[in-house]
Parts: sequence; C-alpha cells; structure tokens
Amino acid sequence: MSLENVLDRIDSDLSEATDRLMELLRIPSISTDPAFKAECDRAADWLVADLQTLGVTAEKRPTPGHPMVVGHVDGPGPHLLFYGHYDVQPVDPLELWDRDPFDPAIEETPAGKVIRGRGSSDDKGQLMTFLEACRAWKAVHGALPCKITFFLEGEEESGSPSLVPFMQENAEELTTDIALICDTGLFESAVPAITTQLRGLLGEDFTITGPSRDLHSGMYGGIAMNPIRVLSGILAGLQDETGAVTLPGFYDDVPELADEIRAQWQGLNFDHETYLGDVGLKAPAGEQDRTPLEQIWSRPTCDVNGIWGGYTGDGFKTVLPSEASAKLSFRLVGQQDPDKIRASFRHYLESNLPDGFTVTYRTEKGSPASQMSIADPAFEKARKALSDEWPRPAAYVGCGGSIPIAGYFKDILGVDSMLIGFGKDDDQIHSPNEKYDLQSFHKGTRSWARILAELTK
Amino acid sequence: MSLENVLDRIDSDLSEATDRLMELLRIPSISTDPAFKAECDRAADWLVADLQTLGVTAEKRPTPGHPMVVGHVDGPGPHLLFYGHYDVQPVDPLELWDRDPFDPAIEETPAGKVIRGRGSSDDKGQLMTFLEACRAWKAVHGALPCKITFFLEGEEESGSPSLVPFMQENAEELTTDIALICDTGLFESAVPAITTQLRGLLGEDFTITGPSRDLHSGMYGGIAMNPIRVLSGILAGLQDETGAVTLPGFYDDVPELADEIRAQWQGLNFDHETYLGDVGLKAPAGEQDRTPLEQIWSRPTCDVNGIWGGYTGDGFKTVLPSEASAKLSFRLVGQQDPDKIRASFRHYLESNLPDGFTVTYRTEKGSPASQMSIADPAFEKARKALSDEWPRPAAYVGCGGSIPIAGYFKDILGVDSMLIGFGKDDDQIHSPNEKYDLQSFHKGTRSWARILAELTK
Repeated sequence: MSLENVLDRIDSDLSEATDRLMELLRIPSISTDPAFKAECDRAADWLVADLQTLGVTAEKRPTPGHPMVVGHVDGPGPHLLFYGHYDVQPVDPLELWDRDPFDPAIEETPAGKVIRGRGSSDDKGQLMTFLEACRAWKAVHGALPCKITFFLEGEEESGSPSLVPFMQENAEELTTDIALICDTGLFESAVPAITTQLRGLLGEDFTITGPSRDLHSGMYGGIAMNPIRVLSGILAGLQDETGAVTLPGFYDDVPELADEIRAQWQGLNFDHETYLGDVGLKAPAGEQDRTPLEQIWSRPTCDVNGIWGGYTGDGFKTVLPSEASAKLSFRLVGQQDPDKIRASFRHYLESNLPDGFTVTYRTEKGSPASQMSIADPAFEKARKALSDEWPRPAAYVGCGGSIPIAGYFKDILGVDSMLIGFGKDDDQIHSPNEKYDLQSFHKGTRSWARILAELTK
Repeated sequence: MSLENVLDRIDSDLSEATDRLMELLRIPSISTDPAFKAECDRAADWLVADLQTLGVTAEKRPTPGHPMVVGHVDGPGPHLLFYGHYDVQPVDPLELWDRDPFDPAIEETPAGKVIRGRGSSDDKGQLMTFLEACRAWKAVHGALPCKITFFLEGEEESGSPSLVPFMQENAEELTTDIALICDTGLFESAVPAITTQLRGLLGEDFTITGPSRDLHSGMYGGIAMNPIRVLSGILAGLQDETGAVTLPGFYDDVPELADEIRAQWQGLNFDHETYLGDVGLKAPAGEQDRTPLEQIWSRPTCDVNGIWGGYTGDGFKTVLPSEASAKLSFRLVGQQDPDKIRASFRHYLESNLPDGFTVTYRTEKGSPASQMSIADPAFEKARKALSDEWPRPAAYVGCGGSIPIAGYFKDILGVDSMLIGFGKDDDQIHSPNEKYDLQSFHKGTRSWARILAELTK
C-alpha cells in the first residue's frame, strides 16, 4: 500500500507542485544568450534550495559556463542518477507568443489543461516530475527510496560545452548503477515511451564573403556575384529531388534498420498525415523511399535553421551585399562521425564558392548518435511501471532529437541510461507558446513514483 | 568673360560651398524609414531657405509621403527644370562606417580630398553642384541666366510613391523646355558623361510560409519541408549556369544593342578587372556571352537584395522555421514590362512552392527602362560644355541604375531629360563610408556654370 499512499499524496499535492514549477518557469534561464547568465545562476540556486528540502545534499558547482547542480542522498540500492536541464531556449519571435514566455499560467484548452510558458516542457516541467515524485515519497516514507545522485545541467540548449569536462573531472562522483534522463516524450497521449535510439547533432554556423563591401545593384548587379545567390545555390544543392542529402559519404555509416525494429515501429501505426497536418503541412519532405517514422527516428537529416544577408528592414535597398550567412544542423544516426560529416560539408561548401569568395565558420560542435542496450532488467521494470500508470503499454521508441548526455554517460561513466519523459509532439518546445500538459506533469510525477517503487522492489 | 568670372567665383567660394553642403549632410533624411520623417521635412526646409537666397520663389509642397521642394525663378529662355533628391539611403550596417554617417568631414585620401558622409554623392552633393553654380552666377550677374524650375524630391530612395501623382497634378507648372537631372556619374575620373540609357527596376519583397509554426528540427527535421530550403531552391533557380535569368519570357522585350553603340562602348576601354578588383571580386558573374559594360548598361538582371529566416542570433537554435523571406530586384531594359516580369516571377515562385505552402507579397512597384533621344541641340551644347571643363571629351553612356524620373518627365510632361552627374564608381553610394570627391563637387559646379552659359548663348 505504500506506493498507493505516495500516488495519493501526488494527487492531493498537485496544486502546490504546479505552483513550485511556476516559480521555476518565471526564471528566464536562456543559456544561449550571455545577457541571461545571472538568470541561469538564479535557476541553479532555486534547484539547490529545492533539493535541500528533499534531504538532498545539493550544491551549485561552477563551470566555465553555467553551473551544474549536483546533489546526493544516501539510501539502499540501487544507486540511481537523475539528469535534467534547467536552461531553456530563446523566446524569439516574441511577438508570436500569446503571453509573456516567463509569466507562465495554467490555461484551459480544448484538449485539457496546459501549463504555458518557456521551459514548461523542455525541460523544467519534465525535471520537476522527478523531484515531485521524490517529494511525495519523502512525505509518505520520511526518506527517499534509494541512493540517488541528482545532476542538473544549465547548458543543454547551448551545446553543453562544460558537460564532458565536468563529467570527466567528477567521474567517480557521478558513476551510478543506471541513469534516468527526463527530456523525451510520450509516444502518444495514451502511450508512454522509453527512448532507446537518439540521433546525434552537428551544427555549422558560417558566413560567406564575396565583394569586399556592400554594392549598389544598379552598378554591380549582374556582373558581380551575389553572396545570397551563391549561398542559395549551396543550400539548395544539399538535398536532391528525392530528399536525400547529397554530401559524398553522408550515408556511409548509416545502418539499415533491423527487421524486428521496423516491424515494431510499423505496429505503432504512426499517422504521419496528422503529425504533419497538425503543423499545417501536407506532404512529407524527406527521403521518399523511407517511412515517415523511420525518417524521424533512424535517418540522418540536414536542415537550415537560420539564414540572413543583405537588407532585411522595412522598404527597399537595392544592395548587393558583401556577405550571406546561415546556420545548419545535421541530425546523425548509427556510426556517422560528426568530424567526417563536417569535413564533407565544408569541402562541398568551399568547392562551390566562386573564385575570390571566402568563408568563416563560427562553430565546432558535434555529437554522434546513441543506441541504448536494454539488457539491464531495469528497462523492463520501468516499462511495467509506465504501463501500469498509462492507458496503454509503454513502447521502446527512437527519437529524432539529440540528447548527447546518454552517450556521455555510457562513454565516460560506463552507465546505461533510461530516457523517459512525458512531453508531447504539440508542446511547441523551441517555438512560441511552449506548453506542457497538466496531465503530463501529473501522470509523469506518478510514473516516476511507480518506477522508483519497481526499481527498489 | 562673364563665364570666367562665374568660374572664378566658384573657385574662391569653394570652402563656403563645402560648408553649406556639410550642413545639408548633417540632416539624416532617410526616406525609407518612418522614424526619420521629421528629418526629411527638415532637409526640405533647408533647401527652401537656400533656394530663397538665390532669388527663387521656393516652397515645400506636401504629399502623402515626404514633401517636394518646388521653386521658380523667371528669366529669359530657355526654360530649364532641375531635378535632384534630398533623401538618402539607410546607413546599416552602421558598424562598418569609419565615422558617424551624419557627421560629415573632408578627408584626405591617396586619391585626393573627399567629402565623407551619407548622401555626399547620392544625391545631396550632386544637387548642390547645381545650386552652387546658380549662386556663383547670381553673385557675378545679379540674377540667374534663364528661367529655371527647381524640383527636389524626398522619396527617391524609397520608390518615389508620391512622384507620379504630384507630377500629374502639377503638370503645367513643371513643364519646361528640357530637364536637367543630377543623379548619375562620370564615366571615369577624366571623362564626364551624359547618360542616355537607364535600366528600369522591379522590386519583390515576399515571405513564404510552410509549417504553421516554428518546429523543432529533431522532431520534424527531414520529414517537414523547410521554408529556407524551399526559398534557397527558388532563388538558386533564377539563374542558369551561364548567369542568364531563367524566367520564361524574361528576355522577350530586350533589344540587341545597336552596332554603333556597341562600337562606341568598346572604344571606352572599360576595364572590368579593375572595376571588379576594386571591390574584391575576380570574375564577372553575369551572362557569360555579354561584355561586362553591356551587362551593366544594357542587360536586365535579377539580384537578391536581402534574405532572412529562422534563428539568426548568437549560438544555436535547432529550429525548423515556419517562414523564410527575401527581397529581390530586377533591373529592366528596353521594352521589358514590369507587370509582365512580375507576373512571370510570381508564377515561377508559386509553381515551385510545395503543396500547402503559401506566399505573401509586400510590394507592387516597378518602372520600365528609359532611352533618351539626343535630337535636341541642348545635348550637344551640354557635351561641349562638359568637354571644356574636364581633361577628356564627354561621352554618351548607359547606366545600370534606375532613375525612373527621366521616363516620367517624358511620359507625363513631354520633356526630354539630360542626365549629368559627377559621381564615381567608388563613391560607395548605398554602402558604408559613402563619399563624394571634392573634385566632383568643385568641377561639377563649374560644369553646370559652363552648361548654363552654353544653353543660354
């Protein structure tokens, strides 16, 4: 009956739990913008204080960037590590938000109550599901169920520059029996998921320069090569008419999907028309010979995330600009090597620059894809716990996003990770009007209580 | 001897004339940006006051946009109209200016003294050459040499929306024997020019929209069509590998150059390697089967003047944006019809949008090319006057830029225009660090005195 008591406590404490999350959401901890450095610090302080109320010995640990929050609580085995991140994405374009992104509120929607605000789903709302489960457990039992290390990062949305050095320096302290990572989603509203396949990520941020200064298109149009035209051609050439990426060697280290995984995914009956239709699109754009779910979970991609050049203000300026810039990202799978893909892209880019053009790169980052082993019995225990909470059984799924932390836990600490989260596809993470379903928050908290109970049985 | 006295007066008054120009340059009359509306008004007031010191009955005339400055002074024939514009281009990127664009100064350069500041060449410095010639004439003779109408516009850099309606409403008042337009350049430092061929201009400013909101590239990358990818493909497809514009019908109304004009232009020994080398470029980019001078003066072009979409701030945001935007301009020649070219472009754009994508256009503007007749003897008189002032004889030339005013004078008023100016290719008009050679200002003023003397002989 002890689990039932914890679940009851979670139910009766929901309103207070939501208030606590709101407090954390009000801190604009945008890690990618240096202007918000103090706010990231403030979010870390908030979490340290909150962990201390759970009986956790927690502290803010400095890094060259934003601080880590690390906490420990002793107890019986197994020894778990819980990972989440307290930083959030930038909020632009601000004018598309229906409310201040950092003045969160519960809103009624046709699909139920949601918590609206930046970070509600990615990742403050998610990480608080675990802390609230711990809080309820402590309220009922007077202590947490097992030995737990809390590890909360503040640079996930800006490429985690301090993460690997910090893990290397503190490897012994962070090594546990298994890691729990709460930064992923449900498969669908009624179907929880454990993510076992994550794509890697390679970013490229660059500027090409042609003419040594901005030119008047009346005097130089036609005769002088326009950097925007050059950049457009380079970007347009990255995919062929079937949607495949054209970089030489791009698919060399991409494995074919195992037949049993393909069969399991087909059984999920993924409705790509609804998935796309929900965001106003009609036809899938990627590789035409792959199923949509395969494209999202197990195929590599190349996307332009930003482009700019020339005059972009009101009115007209007949300028032929000196420069044009873009930000690209590649999602990587299988054994694709970020360094090799970067070299292939840069060779393609540079060999398509006209004589006299130059390029400058602003980034050097990349992480390979991760594939979890599910041999540890903890996976099946967690799957049972999730299946008990939600209307339909939990699935092992892939994820199109890149959460390099799971790979680092394996490579640096030798620890397997279970990626369990309660986000939904329509949460609008990284977009205006981000939300987290109140049901995700509530049943997510209950799910962790059930998982803790299973793992400590 | 009376012309000599006027020229002497111009020489001795150069320092004061420069000070007056500096005063006008200090007014940031950027017409394209509504924030500078009051400054445009102030520039118009300044010119009205200055014209009044020349004995001209001048006034600021309201329009729905920025005011016109119109002035009249009576005298013997012929009746001349002088046109210039007091508005200037925006100044961004401001960080590339070596000084405040609106705090002009005389600077020493290896090539001689220059007046540095926004509008020094385009067009305040140029229009003041004519006013200074009039001032010297009046100082020597007590009156201007003939009947002159002054017509100074404040919307040239923002598409002249009020110009045609104003000319139509005031056609009788503005009709003269011939118009003098000072907004063009020398052919080279020693060779003055009368421009008889001007390209037209068509602008397109548009946004394409795909997904109904910004998406996370981890969740939608690959499967959802990216508007930046779509826009890149559309822009890249506007020219083929030879540099020719691919729009159907684009070249239908483009005349071949007359043999005698081609021969004259070949005689000008245009050095395209230096022309491009001066701005850091190596090879001409336009139609490979046309000479560079032909490309600039007599061939139509298509250029992207601005592009933007997605995340363009510091750091990374793995967003798949909902929208992507661009500003294009087409330079038109011969009988190319702006409406027909616009329709052809929009058909091309829309037929290349994926299913479900939409486009919104923010512009409807266009002006056809102009070709002057040089039958009026005033042309040969002006050419003689210019040839007397400068080291080498004046040339009849083409111009890659678009000065639709000459076409309007012909179409609305039935008046031929002589386009005479003293700008240089390296004046960096529309760019940071715009300048006007002090020699252009000085000899330009002297040139107008000589032209007034010839025309009133």
